[in-house]
Amino acid sequence: MPFDTRNLKYDASGLIPVIAQDHASGDVLMMAWMNADSLARTLESGQMTYWSRSRQAFWAKGESSGHTQRLVELRVDCDRDCLLALVEQIGPACHTNRRSCFYTAVRDGAEVEILKVES
Amino acid sequence: MPFDTRNLKYDASGLIPVIAQDHASGDVLMMAWMNADSLARTLESGQMTYWSRSRQAFWAKGESSGHTQRLVELRVDCDRDCLLALVEQIGPACHTNRRSCFYTAVRDGAEVEILKVES
Repeated sequence: MPFDTRNLKYDASGLIPVIAQDHASGDVLMMAWMNADSLARTLESGQMTYWSRSRQAFWAKGESSGHTQRLVELRVDCDRDCLLALVEQIGPACHTNRRSCFYTAVRDGAEVEILKVES
Repeated sequence: MPFDTRNLKYDASGLIPVIAQDHASGDVLMMAWMNADSLARTLESGQMTYWSRSRQAFWAKGESSGHTQRLVELRVDCDRDCLLALVEQIGPACHTNRRSCFYTAVRDGAEVEILKVES
């Protein structure tokens, strides 16, 4: 079946959650949102392009920081309401300069920082 | 810092997206939603307990199928609006009896099924 960006279940705001996973290490890097247009841009350019809910604008990942994400493979879930993107991450994925946005673990009821800020 | 289920950013419906990842293989299994109460139940029981948006009820994963998910470690993202749960998955995670819900890949513009139904 040909893939059609319109053939997905977007929420009331026209958005779908996208999980970015490092294609080599398997690390989950971040979760962000796309609309159909940003998904089309991502597929066309091969560079992850989200939709910024705060700015209400396209968010070409790494445009200012240089920490881009090249799309290696896109996957769709069974309900067609969530996407998984296997990516090649250049530099840290998180705006805090950590490899992944999920750098806080809950251990014995406390929050523990498990990833260092990269230089 | 002690972890407090109230100290997260829930959406307008009081929900937060949760990514379930196999703690051993690194496979992303599914994405679902929790409210503060289902997260508290998850932490208390050690078994992933989501909030079903369609049924508007707790969804103790695997309660009927037996395909439970034991929480190995919970992680919080930088914006505190998404959770990553490392889990031990018993049986397939997907209701289609596939290991992961992300069994459809987009390759050369077409949808390709990459995971078999488990028996």
